[in-house]
Amino acid sequence: MNYLCSPSYSITIRVEIDNKIGMFARIATAISSAGGDLGSVDIVRTEQGKIIRDITVNARDEDHEKTIVKAIKTVMGVKVLRTMDRTFLVHEGGKIEIRNKLPIRDRSDLSKIYTPGVARVCMDIHQNKEHAYRYTIKGNSVAVVSDGTAVLGLGDIGPEAALPVMEGKAMIFKEFANIDAFPIVLNTKNVDEIVATVKNIAPAFGGINLEDISGPRCFEVEARLRKLLDIPVFHDDQHGTAVVALAALINVSRLLKRDLRKFKIVVVGAGAAGTATTRILLSSGVKDIIVCDRAGALYAGRKQDMDPWKRELAKITNPRKMKGSISDVMKGADVFIGLSAPNVITAADIRKMGRDPIVFALANPEPEIAPEEAVDIVRVMATGRSDYPNQINNMLGFPGIFRGLLDVRAHGVNEAVKLAAAQAIAHTLETKELHEDYIIPGPFDRKVAAHVAAAVSEAAKKTGLTR
Amino acid sequence: MNYLCSPSYSITIRVEIDNKIGMFARIATAISSAGGDLGSVDIVRTEQGKIIRDITVNARDEDHEKTIVKAIKTVMGVKVLRTMDRTFLVHEGGKIEIRNKLPIRDRSDLSKIYTPGVARVCMDIHQNKEHAYRYTIKGNSVAVVSDGTAVLGLGDIGPEAALPVMEGKAMIFKEFANIDAFPIVLNTKNVDEIVATVKNIAPAFGGINLEDISGPRCFEVEARLRKLLDIPVFHDDQHGTAVVALAALINVSRLLKRDLRKFKIVVVGAGAAGTATTRILLSSGVKDIIVCDRAGALYAGRKQDMDPWKRELAKITNPRKMKGSISDVMKGADVFIGLSAPNVITAADIRKMGRDPIVFALANPEPEIAPEEAVDIVRVMATGRSDYPNQINNMLGFPGIFRGLLDVRAHGVNEAVKLAAAQAIAHTLETKELHEDYIIPGPFDRKVAAHVAAAVSEAAKKTGLTR
Repeated sequence: MNYLCSPSYSITIRVEIDNKIGMFARIATAISSAGGDLGSVDIVRTEQGKIIRDITVNARDEDHEKTIVKAIKTVMGVKVLRTMDRTFLVHEGGKIEIRNKLPIRDRSDLSKIYTPGVARVCMDIHQNKEHAYRYTIKGNSVAVVSDGTAVLGLGDIGPEAALPVMEGKAMIFKEFANIDAFPIVLNTKNVDEIVATVKNIAPAFGGINLEDISGPRCFEVEARLRKLLDIPVFHDDQHGTAVVALAALINVSRLLKRDLRKFKIVVVGAGAAGTATTRILLSSGVKDIIVCDRAGALYAGRKQDMDPWKRELAKITNPRKMKGSISDVMKGADVFIGLSAPNVITAADIRKMGRDPIVFALANPEPEIAPEEAVDIVRVMATGRSDYPNQINNMLGFPGIFRGLLDVRAHGVNEAVKLAAAQAIAHTLETKELHEDYIIPGPFDRKVAAHVAAAVSEAAKKTGLTR
Repeated sequence: MNYLCSPSYSITIRVEIDNKIGMFARIATAISSAGGDLGSVDIVRTEQGKIIRDITVNARDEDHEKTIVKAIKTVMGVKVLRTMDRTFLVHEGGKIEIRNKLPIRDRSDLSKIYTPGVARVCMDIHQNKEHAYRYTIKGNSVAVVSDGTAVLGLGDIGPEAALPVMEGKAMIFKEFANIDAFPIVLNTKNVDEIVATVKNIAPAFGGINLEDISGPRCFEVEARLRKLLDIPVFHDDQHGTAVVALAALINVSRLLKRDLRKFKIVVVGAGAAGTATTRILLSSGVKDIIVCDRAGALYAGRKQDMDPWKRELAKITNPRKMKGSISDVMKGADVFIGLSAPNVITAADIRKMGRDPIVFALANPEPEIAPEEAVDIVRVMATGRSDYPNQINNMLGFPGIFRGLLDVRAHGVNEAVKLAAAQAIAHTLETKELHEDYIIPGPFDRKVAAHVAAAVSEAAKKTGLTR
């Protein structure tokens, strides 16, 4: 794949330049010859025949950053003073903070916020635990919980290293749904300990967002916590992805005027996202789904590479009892949904699909097939990437879902809530807006979270999730 | 004791008044006849011969609130529309929130804050865990942890009911030391589970403030966590109180020009605060301390009402091996420090003390002896209350202590840190400022936290607590 220069590899280079005509043009030429993408340029100061500038450049990756700096250094009359990585600057000191909603100016404030006044509020909640939703942060708080075992595509990097992602997630909660989310990264990978820890810290939270916990442990963690707790527990890698993928497929069916339930679907990946996506498709009425993992199609009775979760999945899918490789089962399929690894299918596989192939290649950052290879032979393509059309981005789901659940003080989450969320995301776009390259709203479409929240609250009320 | 009207029992009463001359004076008279303390008065609106006002009144307690409202209702031409409890209003919706330090305006922001840019920050921390202090909230965060078993004077009221106090504490951390504290209230009272839970959530925090955990469990919880964790663990009910009480006693010794180490001290209360205060006094060089509990003086070999923590305390105190009641051991003492219960000593007990009796009656809200009874026979008196001089308030300690520890990324806390904090609090007041009624700075003295933080950082560096 061709990687483009990206603001996530953005450096600011402070240079001291001889104050002569044409000098900046030479630097710009050096940057562009090295393949760098020139951004903003600021003057820091001037001093005796020198000018100090901050030049921001987008690069492809870290090696490319170094190449660009080297190129600048070769320009006569230019001295590189220092380079600053703009991504690291953004994270410096952490990205979220606590804010007091009220000032503590004097004893009168203090006596209400803290002792002795607070005692009355405590006793009110002691008499009715539900009042915690009204008088504490619980009414608007979500714990973003990870053990750091499956962080982005980076694998098991540990809790401290997972923290920047969880803080980023907390930021998105705040920005898109005004939810107060706090990152809880766990110094344990033991399922029993994870369950006990989350159960023990639950009282201050109105919801639990599980994140980046490796499979199949994530299934057990979520299932056990749902039984133990009276607040929603939602593993976003499973259900967030499933909801947004379903929303996109709903819109494909609207666009192509075809019945979603009659799609023949191949899901590749039997991990968190693949399993949850398969289940939500079944709930939506889809009948013919074949799930594949590394060993090929899952079917009832398969012996190789099974675990209890895959056995369960095999039982409820693959009604035609197909066996064989991914390539084998792609024949005649309407929809391919990849939630697995780079390059697991080829153009030849897509050519075997039915008329109007629909390909969701959602592995990140490298899809199951490079969009460049697929674009001419598919009817609709979606990826997890922001640099191609139709990005399947969890940001469209979780902020609105938790907003809707918190708004009604939901004591759990169910299938109806997830289906309502998917419908709400899909129908943020009107039928006439739909297009092969526009089957899902963009992640910055501010209408989405509000639509999702309203639909989720409604579904939660209807299905008895409210208090 | 006489209770005064307090802003912690403040109600706003919305009344509809006939718009005639002299009506408001009648209402004011009714309030003052009922013993209420009239505060602000606002006009909400006027309508056809009526005026709607919000009248704020401070009362003594809830019954008094009702009496005042009843008195207003008796005034002809006045209708009470509703009453609003101002303390509850302050807590409505929770008192703290999360704030993003940066906006998420577009894909460029998102690609740095979240995927894909965040991956580089994650890998940097993965390679060096210490970098979490630099690039995440860990560098400025404290968990305020409670199991809700010993909340204020309210006892075991449970985690949800404890939450308003922990949020209040988080507010004080932010307001006085710019620390991002988050309340963690625990759905367990089991010591093993508390220890495991706090250990498991520690990676996102730079420090742990234990709060309102009942004794003697609190000693074991703290001791075990200190061994397990590489961040400071500080049970504020123990050490916060001990530090501030010591600060006050340092200033008494400055005021009276007496050697602190030669004071004969009786400490009443062998719980969290009493034990920690005794220990910090020993560290400060005091030799003659007798600790009393309900059963009287603790001494080595006592059989009644002992536990391992009291046995340890008995070993290191009471060098004269005194036995008997509190009253018995008060004879000839220089200092009484009460961290126990209301009314455990009498004026007669104080009269048995040495010349210049120093009485710290710190039980809250009702001291060990009513200040009115003691004030004429003591040289210096301190309480935990804000409505008498010399308030021993933990707010003088914990914000600055944690600020100082976070500033040097301390991996623990030790005796030197606590002693430095006490000295810093004490020496915020110059010798010439000291007075029998001014031995400790007020809780709103903004200099204190900064002084304490600097002293704590310095002590932590000197004693090898830094990284």
